[in-house]
Amino acid sequence: MTAPIYERVALIGLGLIASSMGHAMKKWGLATTVTGHAKTELTRTSALELGFCDEVFASAAEAVRDADLVVLAVPVGAMEGVATEIGPHLKPGATVTDVGSVKQAVIEAVAPNIPEGVHFIPGHPLAGTEHSGPRSGFATLFRNRFCLLIPNGAAPEAIARLRDYWEGMGANVEEMDAAHHDIVLAVTSHTPHLIAYTMVGVADHLRRVTESEIIKYSAAGFRDFTRIAASDPTMWRDVFLTNKEATLDILGRFTEELFALQRAIRMGDGDELFDYFTRTRAIRRSIIEAGQDTAAPDFGRAKVDGA
Amino acid sequence: MTAPIYERVALIGLGLIASSMGHAMKKWGLATTVTGHAKTELTRTSALELGFCDEVFASAAEAVRDADLVVLAVPVGAMEGVATEIGPHLKPGATVTDVGSVKQAVIEAVAPNIPEGVHFIPGHPLAGTEHSGPRSGFATLFRNRFCLLIPNGAAPEAIARLRDYWEGMGANVEEMDAAHHDIVLAVTSHTPHLIAYTMVGVADHLRRVTESEIIKYSAAGFRDFTRIAASDPTMWRDVFLTNKEATLDILGRFTEELFALQRAIRMGDGDELFDYFTRTRAIRRSIIEAGQDTAAPDFGRAKVDGA
Ligand SMILES: NC(=O)c1ccc[n+]([C@@H]2O[C@H](COP(=O)([O-])OP(=O)(O)OC[C@H]3O[C@@H](n4cnc5c(N)ncnc54)[C@H](OP(=O)(O)O)[C@@H]3O)[C@@H](O)[C@H]2O)c1
Ligand SMILES: NC(=O)c1ccc[n+]([C@@H]2O[C@H](COP(=O)([O-])OP(=O)(O)OC[C@H]3O[C@@H](n4cnc5c(N)ncnc54)[C@H](OP(=O)(O)O)[C@@H]3O)[C@@H](O)[C@H]2O)c1
Repeated sequence: MTAPIYERVALIGLGLIASSMGHAMKKWGLATTVTGHAKTELTRTSALELGFCDEVFASAAEAVRDADLVVLAVPVGAMEGVATEIGPHLKPGATVTDVGSVKQAVIEAVAPNIPEGVHFIPGHPLAGTEHSGPRSGFATLFRNRFCLLIPNGAAPEAIARLRDYWEGMGANVEEMDAAHHDIVLAVTSHTPHLIAYTMVGVADHLRRVTESEIIKYSAAGFRDFTRIAASDPTMWRDVFLTNKEATLDILGRFTEELFALQRAIRMGDGDELFDYFTRTRAIRRSIIEAGQDTAAPDFGRAKVDGA
Repeated sequence: MTAPIYERVALIGLGLIASSMGHAMKKWGLATTVTGHAKTELTRTSALELGFCDEVFASAAEAVRDADLVVLAVPVGAMEGVATEIGPHLKPGATVTDVGSVKQAVIEAVAPNIPEGVHFIPGHPLAGTEHSGPRSGFATLFRNRFCLLIPNGAAPEAIARLRDYWEGMGANVEEMDAAHHDIVLAVTSHTPHLIAYTMVGVADHLRRVTESEIIKYSAAGFRDFTRIAASDPTMWRDVFLTNKEATLDILGRFTEELFALQRAIRMGDGDELFDYFTRTRAIRRSIIEAGQDTAAPDFGRAKVDGA
C-alpha cells in the first residue's frame, strides 16, 4: 500500500483494461475512490460485484464528476462520443487519459472536447489477453509491461503524476509522440494481428476440405494465430479503421516481401529463401539480447498469476 | 524401461530431431544399440560425447549396417543423397523411416532406393523447437505430440512396430496419406512459418526507421513471429522447395483474403472487418474444445523440462 496518487479515479468503459486497472488500484492503494461507467447495466453491476469499482453510474457525465483522473477505456471508435459527453463535466485541474491502441485518431477525437484547465495525456499500456469484458481483468496485467504516454504538450507535473500512477501498477512508462506510436504499433502489433486473423480465415474456408485436422494438428504453428484471432472484434475493427494509414503502409510492404518469397518458391530459388531466412535470425537475436523475450511466447499476453 | 523395440537403430543426421530420439531411446530403453551418422566430424563426436549414440560412422552406409530401424533425420533436400547411399547396405527385413516435414517429395526421393524386402514407412513427428544441431535435443520432445506415419503400402507388422516405438517416446501416432499430410501441414505449419518470416523481414527493413523500438515493443505481438523466423534456414528452405504446390496454393488463398481485408480497411468498411473477426473466433473455440491448446502458446515448440 502506497499513498493514493489520485483521490477519485473514473473508469469510462469497464472491460479488460479498465477492470485490470481497477483491481490494481485496489491492490496497491493508488486511488481513494474508483468510479465507473459502461454502456450496459450488466457490466456496471459486475464491476461493483467484483469490487474493482466503488460506485458506478449510468452516464459517463456522472461518473467523471469530481474525478481527479478520468481513464477512457472504451474501444477507439467510441472515444469521441464519450469525450463529447464528459467534456463539460470535468473538474478543473483534472487529468484525462485513455488506453486506446491507436493514438493519433484518439487525440483528434478527444482533444477538442477537453476544456481549458484539464490535462489531456493520451496513453497506451502494451498489455492484454485475448479475453474481454469486466470479468477478464486482473491486478497484475500491467506488471513489467510498457505503458506509452504521449506528452502532447501537457503540464510536466501532470505527466509525472500519471507516470507514478502507472508505475504503481507495475508498468514501465515511456514517452513517445503519437505519429511515431502509430507506426511502431502498426509493425509490432496491428499488422501481425491482421495477418493472424487472415491465416485463421483461410483455415476456416479449408475446414470443410480437411475436416477437423487443422484443429487437431494446430500445434504445428497455426494455433497461436488462432489465439490472436480470438481477440475482441470491436476493438480490432476500430484499430484498423483508425490506424488505417500506418497499417496499410506496413501491409503494403508485407505483401511485397511475401510476393518476392512466393516467387522464389515458385522458381525454386533456394538461395534466396536461405538468405532471407538467415537474415531474419538477427532480429530474433536482438530481441533476446534486449531482454524482450520470456520463456514462453505469448503474443504480449500476460497470464493470470494469482493476482 | 521397456524391452527394446529394435535391437539396432541407425540415426542418419544427428540434429534436433535425431538427438531427441537418441536421448528418448536411451531414457526408455527402446533400442539396444544406437548408431549415427552426420555430415561433419564435429556433430558425430558431439553425439558420442552427449551419449545419445553408442557408435558413430563417417559414412551413412556403415551406420546402417545391420540396423533394424534406420531413421532419416536430415533436411528434406538431403534425403535423396542419403537414401541412394544407404540403399545397397540395408539389412533385409529392416525398416526405414524418416522424420521430414514434407512427405510426397521425400517418398519420391527415397522409395526408389529402398530394396525389396525392406519396409519403408515415412513419418513426421509434429514436434520441434527453434533450435537445431546435436546439442539441442532432449528426451521428452515428442511427449504428447502427434507423430504422423504414412502407411505407404508397408507390412502391417512393420507399421505396428514403428508405432510402438514412437509411442515409447511418448508420441500419439496417427496414420495419414502423403498428399493429405502435405496440404494439412501447409495450412497448420508451412504457410504460418512463411508468413512469420515475411513479417520479420518487413520489420528488418524498417529497423532503420524506427530504431530499436520494434525490438523493445516486440511483446505486443511481433515477438512470437521472430521466434519462428529463427528456425533453421536449411530446413525451411527445403520445406518450401519440396512442398511447393500446397504452400503456393495456401499462400494464394491467404493473399486473396488479405487483399479483401486490406480493401475493407481502405474503404473504412467496419462491418466486413467485424464479421470477419467474429467468424475466426469459432476456430479458436474448436481448438480449445479439442484440447489442442495449452496455457502457453508455443508455436508447437516443446520446452525442455529437465529431461
Ligand atoms: N485488449 C487488449 O489487448 C488491449 C490492450 C491495450 C489497449 N487496449 C485498448 O483498451 C480499450 C479497451 O479495451 P478492452 O480490451 O478493455 O475492451 P473490452 O474488454 O471489450 O471492454 C470495452 C468496455 O467499453 C465499454 N463501452 C463500449 N462502448 C461504450 C460506449 N459507447 N460508452 C460507454 N462504454 C462503452 C464496454 O461496455 P459494455 O461492457 O457495457 O458493452 C466495455 O465495458 C480499447 O481502446 C483498446 O484499444 C486493449
Ligand atoms: N526442427 C523441427 O522443428 C522439425 C520438426 C519435425 C520434423 N523436422 C524434420 O526433421 C529433419 C531434421 O531436422 P532437425 O531439426 O533435426 O535438423 P538439424 O538440427 O538442423 O540437423 C540436421 C542434421 O542433418 C545432418 N545432415 C545434413 N545434411 C546431411 C547429409 N547430406 N548427410 C548426412 N547428414 C546430413 C546434419 O549434419 P551436420 O550437423 O554434420 O551438418 C545435422 O546433424 C528435417 O527433415 C526436418 O524437416 C524438423
